Amino acid sequence: MVEMRGKAVSDGIKARIGERLEEVKAALGRKPKLTIIRVGDNEADGAYARSALKKVTDFGMEAELCSLPGDSRISEFEKLLKAKSDDKNVDGILVLRPLPEGFEERAKLLLDPEKDLDGMTYINQARVFCGESEGFAPCTAAAVIRLLEHYGVELEGKHAVIAGRSNVVGKPLSMLLLEKNATVILCHSKTPEEILDRELSEADIICLAVGKAGFLSSQRVKESAVIVDAGINSLEGGGLTGDADYEALKGRCAMISPVPGGLGAVTTAVLCESLFEAARRRTGL
Amino acid sequence: MVEMRGKAVSDGIKARIGERLEEVKAALGRKPKLTIIRVGDNEADGAYARSALKKVTDFGMEAELCSLPGDSRISEFEKLLKAKSDDKNVDGILVLRPLPEGFEERAKLLLDPEKDLDGMTYINQARVFCGESEGFAPCTAAAVIRLLEHYGVELEGKHAVIAGRSNVVGKPLSMLLLEKNATVILCHSKTPEEILDRELSEADIICLAVGKAGFLSSQRVKESAVIVDAGINSLEGGGLTGDADYEALKGRCAMISPVPGGLGAVTTAVLCESLFEAARRRTGL
Repeated sequence: MVEMRGKAVSDGIKARIGERLEEVKAALGRKPKLTIIRVGDNEADGAYARSALKKVTDFGMEAELCSLPGDSRISEFEKLLKAKSDDKNVDGILVLRPLPEGFEERAKLLLDPEKDLDGMTYINQARVFCGESEGFAPCTAAAVIRLLEHYGVELEGKHAVIAGRSNVVGKPLSMLLLEKNATVILCHSKTPEEILDRELSEADIICLAVGKAGFLSSQRVKESAVIVDAGINSLEGGGLTGDADYEALKGRCAMISPVPGGLGAVTTAVLCESLFEAARRRTGL
Repeated sequence: MVEMRGKAVSDGIKARIGERLEEVKAALGRKPKLTIIRVGDNEADGAYARSALKKVTDFGMEAELCSLPGDSRISEFEKLLKAKSDDKNVDGILVLRPLPEGFEERAKLLLDPEKDLDGMTYINQARVFCGESEGFAPCTAAAVIRLLEHYGVELEGKHAVIAGRSNVVGKPLSMLLLEKNATVILCHSKTPEEILDRELSEADIICLAVGKAGFLSSQRVKESAVIVDAGINSLEGGGLTGDADYEALKGRCAMISPVPGGLGAVTTAVLCESLFEAARRRTGL
């Protein structure tokens, strides 16, 4: 059984960025720069912000964090979005979720799509939906594809089961897998257990994005199944775990990504790659 | 076995529009008005344009056809799109496909989303993708849902198989069925026959949007299966047929929609309903 660790994928992305970074920096006259926008201080997005800031710096680029208080008015948020969208020294913007009610709807319209590295805007959502490759897909969804490709998993003609239908992971991932010619079934909280179990037992590829520890455990899966775990769940007493019961599954499938140690590092690396790509496009290189 | 005919659905939609039409006409000071934009003279979209014009008039509203020659410059097309988007006497716009290379990309950005009755713009595509109900979905995809609902087919918890992954039917339909809590698998030309046959044999609902006469014929389907045929294929010697071999299937499933006589009438009725809805929103009623 292969444990699909994220570090190797992240290192590969770092190396590919490194090959052209000096050239892009010279054309820009500065390092590519990311702005992370955060409203309030939810702990989950705080941890993600820290690891993203660290990774961008580690990859030789620049990042700043702009925090607004949780009780900010929507006009302040809009002003910040517009300022950073217009700022010629900012190449990419990551707006952290969750956001207060009504804020995301504004960001979908106001954020410059060419800087929208996490595929939050309507235009990037539609581009992913239509299979137009110039759009930025949400980083987690894109990271699933990168992880699978890194480990040589053929996608065309495969039966892929996604559990979880969020706009940030499950739905865009279904479109990205479809674009790779997989045949995709999107399961969710209203999928009867009988259908879920049958599909899981027939799946070549299983992607978990439910947000529930132990969601996949004793169900039957094929020995050849490849399992990517996009779940991030806090354990009582500290630490993180995925949606899969790793110990229960590791001997019963062909490949599985651990949590932590799996998709997380790929997600921040994909963010860096999109930042580099957005900066490169600005230079016309 | 129930034959799901479209006329009854269309009549129901006409009656519901009729209940509020006078009120909306009074508020507008005129009838709701549709503009159909057509480039070139492909026969398939010509037939659709004629039936749409007829239906809008029949439903008590107004429609005009603006035709551009097939060799029009993109700037002429853009000018027309902008003029009709800005025209206060036009409530809805239908841009017929196919379009010359590069034209659809412009319409996706330039067409007023509030008049984009066939869900062509990026914003409406993204709204459908995100499950935001204020967007306009492509009429054919929306018509499948209306047909199923009219015939009392429960969608929640059902296993739905869609064949065909176009941006106009298959993909948006997968999102609309998902929004109704069905579990959806989207099959396509790269789906291995073995997977397709297995999924078809387990499907509660089968939606065909392949564009290939006889695509569904001898495969095993459940006796309780409901089949909606969105295929429109020309027969040699004239006439139309769907993707299903109706004669081969009619005794082996619970419900099936014929072609012609099925989804087509629902699609144009949904177009009328969206026109009425766009006009109603303008009045603020």
